[in-house]
Formats: sequence, C-alpha cells, structure tokens
Amino acid sequence: MLKLYIGNKNYSSWSMRPWVLLRQAGIPFEEIRVRFDSFDPGSQFKATLAGINPVGKVPVLVDGELAVWDSLAIAETVAEAWPDRQLWPQDRQARARARSICAEMHAGFSALRTHCPMNIEARLPEVGALVWRDRPAVRADVERLVTMWTGLLRQHGGPMLFGEFGIADAYFAPVCMRLRTYALPVPAAVTDYIERVCSLPGVADWIEGALAEQDFLDFEEPYRTRR
Amino acid sequence: MLKLYIGNKNYSSWSMRPWVLLRQAGIPFEEIRVRFDSFDPGSQFKATLAGINPVGKVPVLVDGELAVWDSLAIAETVAEAWPDRQLWPQDRQARARARSICAEMHAGFSALRTHCPMNIEARLPEVGALVWRDRPAVRADVERLVTMWTGLLRQHGGPMLFGEFGIADAYFAPVCMRLRTYALPVPAAVTDYIERVCSLPGVADWIEGALAEQDFLDFEEPYRTRR
Ligand SMILES: N[C@@H](CCC(=O)N[C@@H](CS)C(=O)NCC(=O)O)C(=O)O
Ligand SMILES: N[C@@H](CCC(=O)N[C@@H](CS)C(=O)NCC(=O)O)C(=O)O
Repeated sequence: MLKLYIGNKNYSSWSMRPWVLLRQAGIPFEEIRVRFDSFDPGSQFKATLAGINPVGKVPVLVDGELAVWDSLAIAETVAEAWPDRQLWPQDRQARARARSICAEMHAGFSALRTHCPMNIEARLPEVGALVWRDRPAVRADVERLVTMWTGLLRQHGGPMLFGEFGIADAYFAPVCMRLRTYALPVPAAVTDYIERVCSLPGVADWIEGALAEQDFLDFEEPYRTRR
Repeated sequence: MLKLYIGNKNYSSWSMRPWVLLRQAGIPFEEIRVRFDSFDPGSQFKATLAGINPVGKVPVLVDGELAVWDSLAIAETVAEAWPDRQLWPQDRQARARARSICAEMHAGFSALRTHCPMNIEARLPEVGALVWRDRPAVRADVERLVTMWTGLLRQHGGPMLFGEFGIADAYFAPVCMRLRTYALPVPAAVTDYIERVCSLPGVADWIEGALAEQDFLDFEEPYRTRR
C-alpha cells in the first residue's frame, strides 16, 4: 500500500496537492501525518522524516523501496503509474499546457505564498484587504491566476481547468484555499471555479480534516493571535 | 522544427537546462536568443515573448501550435516525445529519484541561486570565499548538493548522476557553472563530476556560446564593475 507523509492539513499547502490527487483519483493510500512541531533540526518532525526524505520535508510518497519527495515529482510518478486515470490531459497540447502551469506554480507565485499562507480554517478578509492594498506583487500573482484560469475554463468548457479533474486542479487547490481565506477580489468565473474545487470529494475530505485538526501553531499564524 | 527561446547564454541558468538537454540528446532545434535588455514591461525582451509565453520568461519550447514554458515542463514534454532517448532513467526507482531531485532544484536552492548567480565567463573565487564565510544558507545548499551527487555517483557508478546523461544532469549543469565561477569548496568527487559535465559536447557548446557572447549586463552583475 502506498504511504503518503503529509504535514498539518490546515497549513501544509504542498501536502494537500498529492493527497487530493490520490484521493480524487481513487488510488488507495495510507496517510501518515507528521505534525509541524517545528522545522528545527531537533524537532520530532525532522526526526520522523530522517531516513525517508533527505530534504526533510513533506510531502513524501513511499511505495515499498521507492520514495518520492516533492509534490511535482509525486504527481508525475502517480500519473505514469496509473495511466488509466488520465491525470494529465490526453491531448498533447493541453498536456504541455498543464505541465507548464504546474511547473509555473511550483517555482512561482511567491508573493501570494508569502503574504497569504494557507490557513484553511481561518477567515481573514481584513488581512486580505490590507495585503491587496499594499502588495502589488500579490495583485500581480492573482491577476496571472485569473487570466490563466478564466482562459482555460473558457477553452475547455470546465468544470475543471482542463475539463475533467486532473493534476492541474490538485496543484491549484491550495491556491483556492488562499483566495478564499483572504477573500481576495476575483471575478465570478473564478469564485465559481473555487466553489467547484471545494466541492470535489477529495478536496472536501481534506478541508474536513483540516477543520477537525484544531492544531494551532504560532509559526504558521502570522496574522491571528487567537482562534 | 522545434524552436527554443532562450536568454543570454552567460547568465540564463533556466535556459541552459533545456538547451543542453536537447543538444546532448541530439534532438534538432532552432535556437532563438532573446537578449536580456531588461525585464521591464516595455523591454524588447518582454515584447518578443508576448504572445509566446503568458509568463514572459525564457525558456520556451515551441513546436508548431504547442508552446511549453518552464524548464521542468519542457524536460517532461521532451522526455515523453522522445522515449527512445531515455532522458529519464529506465529503472522506476531511479526515475522517481531523478524526478525528485529535479523538482527539488526547481523550487529550492534559493540561497545559492541568489548569492551566486550564474556568470559563466566570470571567475570570482574571492566573492565565493566571502559568500561561503557569511552565508550559512549557501553552505547548506552546497552541502545538500554534495550529499546528493556523491551518493548518486556512488550508487550508479557514474559518469553522470544516474549512469548515462539525462535530465538530472542537464538540470544541475547551471549549478556546476556556479560552483566553478565562485570556486566553492567541494570534495574531489564533485569537482570531477563538474569536469565531466563541462566536457559533455552539449555543455561545452553552451559554454563556448556564453564566452563568445560578450554581452555584459549590469543587472546580472552584482559583483563585477568591469570585465
Ligand atoms: N517543493 C516542495 C516543497 C515542500 C515543502 O516546503 N514542504 C513544507 C511543508 S508545506 C515543509 O516540509 N517544510 C519543512 C521545512 O521547510 O523544513 C514540494 O513541492 O513538495
Ligand atoms: N521556473 C522557470 C524560471 C524561468 C526564469 O525565471 N527565467 C528568467 C531568465 S533565466 C527570465 O526569463 N526572467 C524574466 C523575468 O523574470 O521577467 C523555468 O524553470 O523555466
């Protein structure tokens, strides 16, 4: 049985991607939650991951002897192992586009990631309003997302970015969480897409887990002093 | 014929990856150099890329109607289109490992990338000594590279990271350039690997192009005031 090591469901945006992908694709796996006590060398978190992932991060997918770390490598490995699930688009051009935007996400959107960290259970519209007012780089990141998503939804007709659910949707699911928590202003087509993503059973399950978690960590909470 | 849009050969580490990959794999392509005049919205650079890549960056691979941006998406697309070139390792476990380290590179090593920008024709050992002394995060990045490379070279027996040349070597080729330019201290096994990478015909061609370029750009030169 596959094992997927993940972090806190409320905070770990990178863990959410492969978890949603596997769950939504109906691929059975055992979830191993590694709590974010801290990322210090002496932490329980690092101790648990030692020997599994030389980088000491989550997510990690383990299949017997095989360990794959990094969400994008996990996505490619899963897509290759389950070709019948069509996790990348079948059309060559759409597939190239899907890979481009996932790689773009992987290395980019740093302003949005820095200033609007994932926090599924929080509702922080006032923080979002200040971020929006004061951070042009966040506005630029969101503008790029809006162009990307509305273009793809128009081109492929929805409901997901490339028609049916796939890696790209899993990859942008944590971004949907951020846009929702901080209530950043986006057009209706984007709000509707976010709604549809939240309604995917795999995403709904993750959100439910995040809400049940109740594990409030100061170093993941730059904005709230209490819940 | 494939078209690959790239930046300045002396500076553009992301462009170097797919260029070396295609050249070394013997896949014919037309190189389109987009000079780094600046990355401002009004630049010739951005004007040339408008309509080709919504992100306005190089590299971009164009194959008829198909445009793939981002070096990692290009690598996967090329590997898929030319399976006979075996650009990922054939062994499933090695392939998962290769994908993991490329994705790790794609999103990581930011201290090394920031403090030791690629500058192929420069020799900056004094700068490297100061960076090494003052930047623990650079030392940590290099330590991780040393562990990764020496482990893989031992396991697969060289000469490249997974035996024969592949995407992983192309992906780390710009890192070899940085280690060389700044003369960062690494063990002999790593220096030897860097030497072998530099001797690959595809890498040697790129270096030759970088040296011939003679296009000195202030905003890519945080350390030199003259050449
Ligand atoms: N590029 C990696 C990023 C993984 C990552 O940064 N994970 C975070 C949790 S969301 C982590 O484990 N951090 C621990 C640390 O930075 O020490 C991926 O896509 O999987
Ligand atoms: N993640 C991208 C990064 C591409 C990138 O940052 N390219 C640089 C040149 S090496 C660029 O075009 N910069 C222009 C800009 O930042 O506006 C990839 O892997 O291709």
